[in-house]
Amino acid sequence: MKLLQKLCGIHAPSGNEIQMKEFLLDYIDKEKRHWKVQPEILASDDFMDCILLVFGKPRTAVFAHMDSIGFMVRYGNQLIKIGGPVCETGYELVGEDSLGKIACTLIVDEETGQLTYDYYREIERGTELVFKAEFREEKDIVQCCYMDNRLGVWNALKVAETLEDGVIAFSCWEEIGGGSVSFLARYINERFGVRQALIADITWVTEGVLPGEGVAISLRDSLIPRRSFIMKIVEIAKKAGIPYQLEVESAGGSDGKELQFSNIPWDWCFIGAPEDNVHSPDEIVHKADMQAMVDLYKVLLKEL
Amino acid sequence: MKLLQKLCGIHAPSGNEIQMKEFLLDYIDKEKRHWKVQPEILASDDFMDCILLVFGKPRTAVFAHMDSIGFMVRYGNQLIKIGGPVCETGYELVGEDSLGKIACTLIVDEETGQLTYDYYREIERGTELVFKAEFREEKDIVQCCYMDNRLGVWNALKVAETLEDGVIAFSCWEEIGGGSVSFLARYINERFGVRQALIADITWVTEGVLPGEGVAISLRDSLIPRRSFIMKIVEIAKKAGIPYQLEVESAGGSDGKELQFSNIPWDWCFIGAPEDNVHSPDEIVHKADMQAMVDLYKVLLKEL
Amino acid sequence: MKLLQKLCGIHAPSGNEIQMKEFLLDYIDKEKRHWKVQPEILASDDFMDCILLVFGKPRTAVFAHMDSIGFMVRYGNQLIKIGGPVCETGYELVGEDSLGKIACTLIVDEETGQLTYDYYREIERGTELVFKAEFREEKDIVQCCYMDNRLGVWNALKVAETLEDGVIAFSCWEEIGGGSVSFLARYINERFGVRQALIADITWVTEGVLPGEGVAISLRDSLIPRRSFIMKIVEIAKKAGIPYQLEVESAGGSDGKELQFSNIPWDWCFIGAPEDNVHSPDEIVHKADMQAMVDLYKVLLKEL
Repeated sequence: MKLLQKLCGIHAPSGNEIQMKEFLLDYIDKEKRHWKVQPEILASDDFMDCILLVFGKPRTAVFAHMDSIGFMVRYGNQLIKIGGPVCETGYELVGEDSLGKIACTLIVDEETGQLTYDYYREIERGTELVFKAEFREEKDIVQCCYMDNRLGVWNALKVAETLEDGVIAFSCWEEIGGGSVSFLARYINERFGVRQALIADITWVTEGVLPGEGVAISLRDSLIPRRSFIMKIVEIAKKAGIPYQLEVESAGGSDGKELQFSNIPWDWCFIGAPEDNVHSPDEIVHKADMQAMVDLYKVLLKEL
Repeated sequence: MKLLQKLCGIHAPSGNEIQMKEFLLDYIDKEKRHWKVQPEILASDDFMDCILLVFGKPRTAVFAHMDSIGFMVRYGNQLIKIGGPVCETGYELVGEDSLGKIACTLIVDEETGQLTYDYYREIERGTELVFKAEFREEKDIVQCCYMDNRLGVWNALKVAETLEDGVIAFSCWEEIGGGSVSFLARYINERFGVRQALIADITWVTEGVLPGEGVAISLRDSLIPRRSFIMKIVEIAKKAGIPYQLEVESAGGSDGKELQFSNIPWDWCFIGAPEDNVHSPDEIVHKADMQAMVDLYKVLLKEL
Repeated sequence: MKLLQKLCGIHAPSGNEIQMKEFLLDYIDKEKRHWKVQPEILASDDFMDCILLVFGKPRTAVFAHMDSIGFMVRYGNQLIKIGGPVCETGYELVGEDSLGKIACTLIVDEETGQLTYDYYREIERGTELVFKAEFREEKDIVQCCYMDNRLGVWNALKVAETLEDGVIAFSCWEEIGGGSVSFLARYINERFGVRQALIADITWVTEGVLPGEGVAISLRDSLIPRRSFIMKIVEIAKKAGIPYQLEVESAGGSDGKELQFSNIPWDWCFIGAPEDNVHSPDEIVHKADMQAMVDLYKVLLKEL
């Protein structure tokens, strides 16, 4: 869990994922000697702040977004949201401006809902603040801000260890609706002809998707991927005996959205562990679901 | 009207249009010997569950979406919508899960608006349900669920009979915002240089667009296509003496949306018969408007 | 200010920018002999109603949208909006239908908010109406409808006078969410490899962005461009000593949206003078901010 803990503490709100990119490139450089197959690493500025890892002869791509939700300083002591964080007075926020490191507190006006920070000095306009990471581990669970989607990134790195054929894409901007998957998907498709994608992201605990009951395979969120592809995945999960839960939601979105609307006929499926306390500093995930997620990705990348 | 009746009864909610694809391929295979020009039929998995028919040297493409609105079983007896169906307690819904065929009833909670089904057994999570088709024909009208857009498909098949130059595209996912037109449009443009499109879909009876008064030519919905193209179409309709009505709406969308935002300079226009009781089991269309729709498409595909 | 005044009076609501295209082509044809570098002018129907000016060896593209907000006649005396105009009873609207020029008055129903026009005769269905341009100039300010974005267009023409390397793109449909930037951006990228863009548009006076205090550099609106690119721009502005203000908003959008979601890795930044009375007939801009806008674009096109 050391790796996951480190990932959760990296400052990478949407639009500024560079620190995550650098951490991952460094990690991959150190660890890849232990991997079964040495990937091609694509991380030039042509990919902006994203990374592609290409293993063998890929048939399927995994997308894991690196960015997180957070806040940005507007004018005076006002804050606005980056993506959709839960807001409660007292949440600890961290960041940095030209005057130095910042650790301040979120204030939510009870009547208007307006967001401000409480700090001993004014923070520079446009400064990004993210939840302070407090990583908590117990026997069955891990808890921290940004399990969404540092756990998806962690999952991709675990899968990389034994991956023979496939692409792993670390994407940006997911929390604000996207902006990198379109060009990553185009590159992957044009160079390798790949048009199957798995979205490695974290979903919600609900009355139908329970903690500890397995990785969620999403039949739909606000979008509906091609049913025949989802059903093929469900069959593979069933045969492999990996604990999974079917998710059926009418709201929500993911990196799958950019694939759905691209000019390439992508099949895609969202597969991820469920978490409770979504988009708060206290996102909590069951370890069994993390394991099921890794297991299912490993099988799917072999069998799809 | 036999063909239209059959089309209305096919299970093809957004994301699962495969039965419609198979029906159409079978129909086309049987009927095309009677057509003026033999089309190239493109229906491999590169086109997912869509079909392209290419006639002669195309200058214009017609898009008709095959998918329908409906419902999906969430958890327990909950239903969520596929697209935007009208919901009234008592509507009959049909579908199928691994235990067999299903004919159940929609229940709308009067206070919360929540949707459930009434059935003697639990239906499997993720099962799709659609309106039960009750096709009604009178002297001047036809009425059934899914005139939107089985009538657009029917229109395309009628136009195919005498079409010399043009592409007919049967698309997927329109009712949930799209997902196939982007790649179909790219293929059509790259191979044939075509960048004129007609959207064969069904629109609304309103105070300005009346049943029996002609096919609707849409000047705009939530989007606004290039005015010069629309005006060229209006001129052709006028000269041909085909009954038409100009539609001007601020809401609504169609397959035109994916063309508008594509990276190809498409001109597009929505042209379709108006219906009343939109998105209900009782969609009703005037036969004269159906005829005007077919007539206008035939002329436009010659003259554009 | 003669040029700006003329631009503000041209009828070019979204979807019907042809008069603006013709005015600009005529203006460019007359003026370009005075420009430092003779641009390639791309304005065939492949670019629909848009124009591209290509100077030297471009590294950066400037997008300035030509279209304006307005109204369209629906049924009877109803009006619907084109984009998001402010609506007040008494606003003067102008347009033309087949019966001739029109100058009518906007009526807003106080209870329902419904829009109608007051005119001595019925106006043809689908007719576009725009605010009547009343150009007002004082020592420090200019005021008129459609400073957004005729001032962005004016800025681009000023920059063109001395531009050595760069693309200027005059785009359509911005006020209704886009439709031309995708194909313009694709052309620019494929032919020149350019993937840096500046959005020359007008923004809002707020408590943080004041009239006369400099051109606004937007750190974000509803979208968040890549931070490293924005910070490079801020550094250049700072070094050049050009008055600028950092804007941080959670709402709003621009031509940048189509770049963000394109399948090309564009960096983009919205840079424009702030105005008060946004989207009304009385949009007002400080001349010092207009000058700062032109100055900053000139420097950026050299240094980026």
